[in-house]
Amino acid sequence: MNKLTYDELVATRLTTAEAASVPRHPVVVILDDIRSLYNVGSIFRTADAFHVACVATCGFTPAPPRPEISKTALGADAVVPTLAFSSTVEAIEHYRSAGFTIMAAEIGHGSRTTQELASGDYPLAVVVGNELTGVSQQALSLCDGMIEIPMFGTKHSLNVAVATGIILAGTVQRYRMFSS
Amino acid sequence: MNKLTYDELVATRLTTAEAASVPRHPVVVILDDIRSLYNVGSIFRTADAFHVACVATCGFTPAPPRPEISKTALGADAVVPTLAFSSTVEAIEHYRSAGFTIMAAEIGHGSRTTQELASGDYPLAVVVGNELTGVSQQALSLCDGMIEIPMFGTKHSLNVAVATGIILAGTVQRYRMFSS
Repeated sequence: MNKLTYDELVATRLTTAEAASVPRHPVVVILDDIRSLYNVGSIFRTADAFHVACVATCGFTPAPPRPEISKTALGADAVVPTLAFSSTVEAIEHYRSAGFTIMAAEIGHGSRTTQELASGDYPLAVVVGNELTGVSQQALSLCDGMIEIPMFGTKHSLNVAVATGIILAGTVQRYRMFSS
Repeated sequence: MNKLTYDELVATRLTTAEAASVPRHPVVVILDDIRSLYNVGSIFRTADAFHVACVATCGFTPAPPRPEISKTALGADAVVPTLAFSSTVEAIEHYRSAGFTIMAAEIGHGSRTTQELASGDYPLAVVVGNELTGVSQQALSLCDGMIEIPMFGTKHSLNVAVATGIILAGTVQRYRMFSS
């Protein structure tokens, strides 16, 4: 049993030049007042891995360029398209005008798992919320729905970078199922 | 659109007493020389969320009780069963004797996604590797297979806590599909 060698692994990955031209999955992440530079950096690294269209930093969410973000992102913040908005509401309005379905990463009445998404839900913008308070009620009231990660334990949430990873993996996998 | 209220959310979660008696998903995580207390704490939080059977800390991986782990785990390290092994090889031998399939979280020839797992792959022990070097070749040589997260960007890996989240979400979801 062997991992891919470094050269084999590099051959499966996009170069920075290719990343700028290969069409991205029609999924964007809207960061609603995320506090931690570590979480934002990690989300950029994940956004590169799943080749999503954009990371939108909103409100007080730290935005690139910041050395702390680059360090945790391993430089992915220089590859992934990003937009900064003064508020999450503004970002939601921007993506709604562009034809995106807007869904909050939250658990609520009517929330769906990524496996329950329909092809018509794409292009899809996912709002992920603050480490302590989640997606704000103001932003939530503008969303078309909620995406839920099924959980079975004692706690009520996941770390926001972990939750974003699970949701991007799931939404991209689901999109590729529809487009294959 | 509304999130569940705090009381509704609490009602969907296990109490600490219930968590000790409700059968856990037959998935364990073997941490192969993870360096960061932050990553270990985050993995405990995730392991609680997916109600997996055990987190095995191996080699120089920090093990509970440690205040830094508890802080990042939000106390989940007190709920999730855990075992410490002096080496990952010892952990693999322990779980193999107990009837587990052992799979490394790595990309290689023959690696499969969580969606390609078979019911016979459970109970399942997933080895996740060091932040810089991944799963050691020695541990990998003892594994029955590799679980791969499909990636599409420029980088060659994800943060280990994010990768563990995606793999636990996927392996537990797959297991529940077989057992429903």
